[in-house]
Amino acid sequence: MYENFDFHVLAHILPNQTRSQKPKPLTKHKPDLDMRIEIPREFERIGAIQIFGLQKVYELDGGIGEHERSSVIECIPQDVLHEQMKNMAIVVPVKEERLKLIEGVLVGIPSSCDVIIVSNSSRTPVDRFQLEVATVENIAKFTGKKITIVHQKDPGLARTFAEAGYTDIIDEQGLIRSGKAEGMILGTLLARWLGKQTVGFVDSDNYFPGAVHEYVSEYAAGFAMNGIKNTFVRISWHSKPKITENSLFFAKWGRSSVNSNKILNHLMTHFCGFETEIVKTGNAGEHALSVDLALQLEYAAGYAVETHHFINLIETFGGVLEGGDPKVFRDHVAICQIESRNPHLHESKGDEHVEDMIDASLSVIYHSPLCPQSLKDIIMENVRQRRGADAPEEIAPVRVYPSLSKLDLDIFLKGCDEVMQHGESNQYIRKNAEAVLPG
Amino acid sequence: MYENFDFHVLAHILPNQTRSQKPKPLTKHKPDLDMRIEIPREFERIGAIQIFGLQKVYELDGGIGEHERSSVIECIPQDVLHEQMKNMAIVVPVKEERLKLIEGVLVGIPSSCDVIIVSNSSRTPVDRFQLEVATVENIAKFTGKKITIVHQKDPGLARTFAEAGYTDIIDEQGLIRSGKAEGMILGTLLARWLGKQTVGFVDSDNYFPGAVHEYVSEYAAGFAMNGIKNTFVRISWHSKPKITENSLFFAKWGRSSVNSNKILNHLMTHFCGFETEIVKTGNAGEHALSVDLALQLEYAAGYAVETHHFINLIETFGGVLEGGDPKVFRDHVAICQIESRNPHLHESKGDEHVEDMIDASLSVIYHSPLCPQSLKDIIMENVRQRRGADAPEEIAPVRVYPSLSKLDLDIFLKGCDEVMQHGESNQYIRKNAEAVLPG
Repeated sequence: MYENFDFHVLAHILPNQTRSQKPKPLTKHKPDLDMRIEIPREFERIGAIQIFGLQKVYELDGGIGEHERSSVIECIPQDVLHEQMKNMAIVVPVKEERLKLIEGVLVGIPSSCDVIIVSNSSRTPVDRFQLEVATVENIAKFTGKKITIVHQKDPGLARTFAEAGYTDIIDEQGLIRSGKAEGMILGTLLARWLGKQTVGFVDSDNYFPGAVHEYVSEYAAGFAMNGIKNTFVRISWHSKPKITENSLFFAKWGRSSVNSNKILNHLMTHFCGFETEIVKTGNAGEHALSVDLALQLEYAAGYAVETHHFINLIETFGGVLEGGDPKVFRDHVAICQIESRNPHLHESKGDEHVEDMIDASLSVIYHSPLCPQSLKDIIMENVRQRRGADAPEEIAPVRVYPSLSKLDLDIFLKGCDEVMQHGESNQYIRKNAEAVLPG
Repeated sequence: MYENFDFHVLAHILPNQTRSQKPKPLTKHKPDLDMRIEIPREFERIGAIQIFGLQKVYELDGGIGEHERSSVIECIPQDVLHEQMKNMAIVVPVKEERLKLIEGVLVGIPSSCDVIIVSNSSRTPVDRFQLEVATVENIAKFTGKKITIVHQKDPGLARTFAEAGYTDIIDEQGLIRSGKAEGMILGTLLARWLGKQTVGFVDSDNYFPGAVHEYVSEYAAGFAMNGIKNTFVRISWHSKPKITENSLFFAKWGRSSVNSNKILNHLMTHFCGFETEIVKTGNAGEHALSVDLALQLEYAAGYAVETHHFINLIETFGGVLEGGDPKVFRDHVAICQIESRNPHLHESKGDEHVEDMIDASLSVIYHSPLCPQSLKDIIMENVRQRRGADAPEEIAPVRVYPSLSKLDLDIFLKGCDEVMQHGESNQYIRKNAEAVLPG
């Protein structure tokens, strides 16, 4: 019955080891832990932009750096990652999130990063923001994490935007508009105010602290591999579990991603002349970029912010539109796409808006001056296939905030100094700070 | 509308910072990354055993070690964790598992650990073991991970057990019996063969590499805090998501855990004289212990192995049974319980056996000479409540393998040398090793 057992036992890597031949003690290298990550196998170039192919992560923790180096796998030592993290602010937009989830996300963010929580949670009837502050205080007390938390509807911050000439973001009440894109703009500017060179984004509804930890480590890896200047790191999820018929199905791609990646690749193909599938992160919510680069980009409202960043990068640095600033084409912009190893499992808020999300992503491509008529036709065909008789004649444009270069940064930062230190909330800051930092 | 905004902006930790007052560069400490973990707030003592209360993890990655040290939070530097991992083998029992899941688990295990895969997958009609070997080879090729993979039904290994006088584990065919406990025994002995001081266990069906990484880091943290000698680290999951009505519910405790913890706490209460709830990890599948300690323990078959380890520790080191070896009571055995931060989300194999699992755990308590009549009554009451009319008169005993101290270790290890190096699989080992390790 067992004669076809031609091999049964297999000892890898330790080929000639017996008890008396233990591996040599590995003391010559100091322990530097690596994240082990594939180097990109391909890239596309368009003007100043280099879009690298998806990079796979082979080990979350490559252990001590004693292994043979491979020419196709990059090993990024942990201390290099943490040097990058010290330059980084992680922005966590929050809206009516369960406190346990926020706590878990904070637990997963490495302590070397600054955290900026931009909350747009309700203040009445229950002051949910106050509950969030209490949660953050508790975590900060036990970890010494550097956390800044602001409310998106803070009148002082709105005033600061107005003074800096960036009034598009102000609503009829004179406050910052609601929305995740608006929170991202605020978070990016606060990262600059804190003196950070890079800014990354993490959703507040992730169930797995370990996944958050991985994203941030991958942001750091992207900057370590490409340099900070003009680098954009975008994460493609390994999989996104969906609950179907009371079990989990590990979908590789969400419908939103499928559509926006497909159309973005059509656009790339149009400019490159060779068909390409290089774009895998067209609407990557998990992304990080240098603050200087972020301050040159436009922000689309609603679901389109990530796809619009992609488009706006090509508009600005691709050298395919007339009238651009020739100086910027001498820059080099790297788009680094990394495939995370943890599945992405987040709070399910229902999928009813998925068609709107797809439309928003396609809209910013459609309405870009980059978009050739042939691609407009493809986009409208896509809309008709998904919407049937409800399809509009032309896909509606979404609100796009002007480039942050239109904002007077000096005035804004000075206003922040005021609001964060000497404004109406001043007293509260001090009280908390004293409670958290003894001495 | 907004006048009740008494505070809006809150800057933690950086109280007096403005742009011109950036935090001082933190260069005086070398970057040592910490896992930030609570020190136990309580313990119970029974004979030589000290059972520590559950310890909470506050940060997966505490960043560079520049923070103020707290007296209640232990910061364990990453290089200390990795020194522990170099002593550690992680055993992954595998049976007909999806290859993607095995790959993910391997990605999550830090490279400093040796990995021992004990597979009991089928060889016919499809040789699933061969597929597993190919997966492992691929991962090893890209990461340099040190992985040993054996098949539980290897005739050479069965012969080695027989020669070492540990025949209980051999079935009618002359091979090692099927079962996870049997795989754990084999894995523990192979850890010893590899010269490792500690051995940890990780299931092969975990969906989240980040969770696996956390468990192994916590094993290392437990050994770092308590020393290696006679330390037993057991993980309590933060939560275990269940799919109910097409959404996720984050249950804190499984039914199995609730029952075995409750009865074990009854037992502790009986010996301590004060009611206690200290036991939170009665059937912790995620656990690690020093190999020397593991070699003194009995192994229950089936679902009872973890609970029986707990019981057998008290039988051996608790000093409450007559006739024990007085020398061992002078030892100190630490049971360290750590609450992981990642939820535990694994492949669902159905819950039909949950009653059997509970019975198995309770059975090893019931049939221990430690168990007072009053607790036997409580256990049978529990069985009757769950089983109703199907409840037996007395809970059936489960198979318990004798302590590994009954096995002649020298003969076993010598046999392993033979099987792993010069046995029937020798050629295959060499071939692989050459493919994997250049030069």
